[in-house]
Order: sequence, then C-alpha cells, then structure tokens
Amino acid sequence: MTYCTAIKLNAGLVFLSDSRTNAGLDYISTFRKMIVYEKPGDRFMVLLTAGNLSISQSVREILQIEHLKDSETGEPITIWNAKSMFDAARVLGSAIRRVYDRDASALKNADVDFNVSLIFGGQVRGEGMRLFQVYSAGNFIEATGETPYFQVGESKYGKPVLDRVITPETPLAEAAKCALVSMDSTMKSNLSVGMPLDLVVYEVDSFQSDKVVCIDSSNPYYTMLHNSWGQKLREVFDSIEDPVWDDAHTDIPLKMPASRNQPLKKISNPREKLI
Amino acid sequence: MTYCTAIKLNAGLVFLSDSRTNAGLDYISTFRKMIVYEKPGDRFMVLLTAGNLSISQSVREILQIEHLKDSETGEPITIWNAKSMFDAARVLGSAIRRVYDRDASALKNADVDFNVSLIFGGQVRGEGMRLFQVYSAGNFIEATGETPYFQVGESKYGKPVLDRVITPETPLAEAAKCALVSMDSTMKSNLSVGMPLDLVVYEVDSFQSDKVVCIDSSNPYYTMLHNSWGQKLREVFDSIEDPVWDDAHTDIPLKMPASRNQPLKKISNPREKLI
Repeated sequence: MTYCTAIKLNAGLVFLSDSRTNAGLDYISTFRKMIVYEKPGDRFMVLLTAGNLSISQSVREILQIEHLKDSETGEPITIWNAKSMFDAARVLGSAIRRVYDRDASALKNADVDFNVSLIFGGQVRGEGMRLFQVYSAGNFIEATGETPYFQVGESKYGKPVLDRVITPETPLAEAAKCALVSMDSTMKSNLSVGMPLDLVVYEVDSFQSDKVVCIDSSNPYYTMLHNSWGQKLREVFDSIEDPVWDDAHTDIPLKMPASRNQPLKKISNPREKLI
Repeated sequence: MTYCTAIKLNAGLVFLSDSRTNAGLDYISTFRKMIVYEKPGDRFMVLLTAGNLSISQSVREILQIEHLKDSETGEPITIWNAKSMFDAARVLGSAIRRVYDRDASALKNADVDFNVSLIFGGQVRGEGMRLFQVYSAGNFIEATGETPYFQVGESKYGKPVLDRVITPETPLAEAAKCALVSMDSTMKSNLSVGMPLDLVVYEVDSFQSDKVVCIDSSNPYYTMLHNSWGQKLREVFDSIEDPVWDDAHTDIPLKMPASRNQPLKKISNPREKLI
C-alpha cells in the first residue's frame, strides 16, 4: 500500500509521500514514490505515485521521453517544454496509456488489474500553480478552492484532519504540519504505509525548491509531532464530559425525555415480531 | 453503508449503530441495525448488522425460530435457551447458512455477493459476557483483552480513537463516549453513515439494560460532543509547532543535517536517470 497527499494553497504547494510497498503482507519493501522535475526559473513539477509498482515505475521511466504533438505547430510537447501544467498532465496521461498498450493485456491474463493513480502538480512560468489527480485511464481532475488537496493510496485514516484544517488560505508551514499529521494517523492504522517519508514544500512563483526533506523515524520534528498529537488527542478526549443517563440531573442528557425518543424495540420472546 | 461498533469491557458492554442504508447514492433510507434480545434475569443479547439488507433482515427474521440440535440430548438449542453465548452465536451462524442456502445462488445469478457481517454479544446467566463478530459464512471470532472491540461496515475513519482509548479497564461511560466519537468521525467523512444512532450500554451481570437510547441530531449530549471534539481537535492542531526548516535555529528541526538525510533525487533534464 501507499499513502500520498498533495495540497494546493494560495502560498504554494505541499507534497508528502510514504515509501512502503507490499506484494502481500510477507513481502514488504521500500520504494520512494515522489519525483521532482525542476528547471530552476522555468518550471517545478512533482509526481506522486500509487498503485501497481511495475506500472508506476514504467510511467516514470518513459515520462521523460514521452511527447504529444502540438495541434497547431506539430512540434512535440514534453513535460520539459509544455507551456502549461495542463499540457504536462496530458503528457503524463499519454505515458500511462502507452504503458497500458504495452502491459494491460498481459496483466489481464495474470488477473492483475491495470491499477495506478498519480498526483501531479507544480508550476510552469507564465501561469499559476496547478495540481492534478491522474487516473489509470490517463484522464485527470484538477484541485480547486473547494477541494484543495488530493490523496492517493490508503486515504481514509488521514482524511479527517485535512478536511478540518485545509483551506486555500492555510499557510504553507501549517499545511505541511497537517500533511504530516494526516500521514501519522495513516501509519498508526495501516502497517502497509511506512517510513521514510518524502516532503516537498514549494512557494508560489519560485520555480524551484530547497524545502525537500526525507523524514525517517529519527527526525526530531516528526518525533515531536507524533508524540504530541497522540498525547494531546487523549487529553481532548478526557476533557469532554462522559454521558449522563439521568436527564433530571444535567443540562446535556444523553437520554432524552421518553416523548422525544424513538425507542429501540426489545425482543423478549421468540414469537415477538420485529416490526 | 453502515457503521456499527461494540466494545467489551470488564464493567460491561457498549453497542452503537447508525441507521443509514443505501442502494446507490440516489437511494438512501433509514433502517435500524440493532436488536436487543432480553429475558430479564436470564439473558441479554444484542445483534448489530451490516452488509446486504435483504440478507441481514432475513437472518434477523429467522434467528428467533432457528435452532441447532444439542449433540448430547438431541434437544433444540435456540438463542432463548442456549446455555452459553457461544451456542447462541452458533445458532446465529446457522441462521446465516440457512439464508445462504435459500438465496445465494439467485444472488450470484444477479452478480450480488452474499455479503453480511454481524456483531453479536451479551451475557447468559452462568457465564461471563462475550462478544463475537460473525461472518457471511456463519463462522465467528470472539473479542479478547487485546482486541476488546469489533467494528462492521465503514470502520476506518472511526478506528483510530478506539485504538487510542479502549482497554478492558475503560469505564462504561467513557467507552460510550469513545464509541460516539468514533461514530462522529465516521459520519463526518462518509455520507452513507447517518443518524439516528442506537446506543445500548449493558452492565456486567445485570441481565437487562435500561440504558438504551436513540440519538438524533437534536440530542444535547451528542451535539455537545460533536461540537467540542471538532473545536478541540483544531486547538490541539494549532498548539503543535509548525515545522522550521532551518536546523540552525531550533531544537526540533524538520530538515536534518545533510549527512543524515537521504536526499530525494531531483530530475533536471530529460536524459537524467531516476536511479
């Protein structure tokens, strides 16, 4: 399994990925799932991959030579000369389709789904930042102000904190912290997501980034965050009152007066009907 | 979808279920998923159901007349005369198999899986409390001190808080609060889990319970819990320091000294190799 997330903010982009892959529970390995494509001053792009590793590695391998024909000039468009992130995402979709043409029928014979999902984001000089989620069919969707983040892989455990915190106005450092909390929750609940983590933070209009870090279990910031989050969650839980059943003695009863409750039917003998 | 959870503590049992079902996103209904079987002073049992509603309703319907032959006496064992919860769980498994015999091949013709999962727990006079998770094949597993709770349905969003809080020593009211937080997280993230909720709290050796409540959106305790949890989670998040990149100025740097970091490879031109 895998967990990757990317967030698009007014201030920039945050990308985070784990590095665990598994082919069954008894074959667990470490593969990095993030690649940065950077031409300083001109373009900065990050690709995160989840799904079948043989497919995502093939896509990464051919992405650099993949091209589309420009419909007007006939010139080849690659991720290195694309005038927009949208065109670069089309090149990525085309690379997926090329791998599909090559591998899908053989995979089908082996009962393996053609399964890959990717997050691709960045900025090309001349337009704003853009963030895409790209599917196995090579089609893609773009993040918006209402939905400013994407996740691929094991997304459920880490989604609530993103939903609670992230808006386009969130500062970059806070969004990076949020992505790390999201990853921490995921690693706690799913053994197939694991260290080390790759984190990249990109500031809008910089067309390069030095905020690139590989986080392992000895990282002081991550260790602090992991311990604080667990401990403080527990403190919050303890700070909320336990339910009180007797509604006569509290302003916030769990049990409502009988008139307002829809009682649960209790069955007391075999002949009783449920409904 | 559905979310149900049940927790076995030294002090008693907690059962919680939602009541939303859906056949596609465009057909959402309310069905209660909990039934209480109570013979005061003798036995108290609760059944929670998830999966295909036609299967779980059939199981519930025939459970009251279902019986197994006692291997020694030849007498019929039902949930109402079983001498142990284990025997009652076997009767439940047998009811599932009866529905399977009746419906599975027709369902298969319609490409519908025979999918049902249940939680069944309680206490029969003469033994301790027991809690089982029962599968589509009628087989079952029992909760232990190490794993004192079960979930069926949409379990992922609500699992982290159970893992952080629940042990066999947890008091009943605190466990009820924990189940409600678990449900709250699930309803926030999955629209197919919804109100009203049914909550039952059973005290060990009481063989009956009056702590049975149907919780809708106007319930004062649930409303307080929902609002407090969201707000305090956010406060905890804000109380954790944002990451600082420059390791010269902090005790808890995000970026480690270069010597200890495994740098992420950046690709800067099409001919560069990934590895």
